[in-house]
Amino acid sequence: MIRQLTIATRGQGLYEITREISACVHEASWQEGLCTVFVKHTSASLLIQENADPSVRRDLAAWLARLVPEGDPLYTHTSEGPDDMPSHIKSALTATSLAIPVVDGHLTLGTWQGIFLWEHRNGHHGRHLVIHLAP
Amino acid sequence: MIRQLTIATRGQGLYEITREISACVHEASWQEGLCTVFVKHTSASLLIQENADPSVRRDLAAWLARLVPEGDPLYTHTSEGPDDMPSHIKSALTATSLAIPVVDGHLTLGTWQGIFLWEHRNGHHGRHLVIHLAP
Amino acid sequence: MIRQLTIATRGQGLYEITREISACVHEASWQEGLCTVFVKHTSASLLIQENADPSVRRDLAAWLARLVPEGDPLYTHTSEGPDDMPSHIKSALTATSLAIPVVDGHLTLGTWQGIFLWEHRNGHHGRHLVIHLAP
Repeated sequence: MIRQLTIATRGQGLYEITREISACVHEASWQEGLCTVFVKHTSASLLIQENADPSVRRDLAAWLARLVPEGDPLYTHTSEGPDDMPSHIKSALTATSLAIPVVDGHLTLGTWQGIFLWEHRNGHHGRHLVIHLAP
Repeated sequence: MIRQLTIATRGQGLYEITREISACVHEASWQEGLCTVFVKHTSASLLIQENADPSVRRDLAAWLARLVPEGDPLYTHTSEGPDDMPSHIKSALTATSLAIPVVDGHLTLGTWQGIFLWEHRNGHHGRHLVIHLAP
Repeated sequence: MIRQLTIATRGQGLYEITREISACVHEASWQEGLCTVFVKHTSASLLIQENADPSVRRDLAAWLARLVPEGDPLYTHTSEGPDDMPSHIKSALTATSLAIPVVDGHLTLGTWQGIFLWEHRNGHHGRHLVIHLAP
């Protein structure tokens, strides 16, 4: 079973998509299986991270922004704006696809795990995801 | 087929789990398929790395500890101890899920590849893994 | 369905393998499914990145080479050459397996996405990939 979703983003940050992915799993109504999430972009990525304390996500984003700053003189690919090349690097360091087992009809996420779309660009974007479910 | 494992960790480091994952594959007794490993935590992660020379893993862990040090003044999430925020960042930079094809009843790991649970926290933990096998 | 490929590399860099992986998908002739790519090495990795402007890939490789330089005095594993330990670290920071859904008989790659084998070592190598396809 394949589902396609578009997530609206409004600038850099982590957008939780656990509810949207869980809804696909419930719709499939399999008791056991595997849910794979794929993001069709190279300047946004996927992450499973703590969804309890928002300071974890803030620190994580601040840390990565410091590691991969805008305006690095190393960049030659600057024609698409100062946030573009950092976005590609941040995407390369995180995930384009994630696989999460399904048990008893639910994603087997840990107590503190949420699924996030990580938008690395400024501005508003519609980010396309493909979800594959199989028993 | 789904199997759930708990791996006991005793502080930061790479814990080889190749044997445990291989045992699940043998139990399934499929000749061809896909084995997906998922870790239910955001301060421990998964890695496929060289399992021959332990100096590779020591250098890798030392390098990542230097990149993501404890006590960074950037962190605001400090209430769970100095090793907590670095653990979340290290997990984000490595894998939460891994997929390994099965051929002739065995994981198709390369000659030098082992599967590791990477514990990023101090102290003793029981880390929960979910293994999904499908033909 | 399992296919095994060997990709010849001639030094560090990103080698596009989209055509090779797509050929496996066409051969399977499934309309819907999941394609998983696995690399059997710990000094080469997998990446989905922009395949349009080559300056993105050049900057990405230059950035990672600066983050993980050869000759870092931290390394103790130096017996296999100055490019070996950086290769293991770069592999750990990127992907060993990738999963891409298949819709209408094609990989659901985004407009600008290509699949790459990232060779982290100097010299010529034959890199082994395993591709798993399932409905």
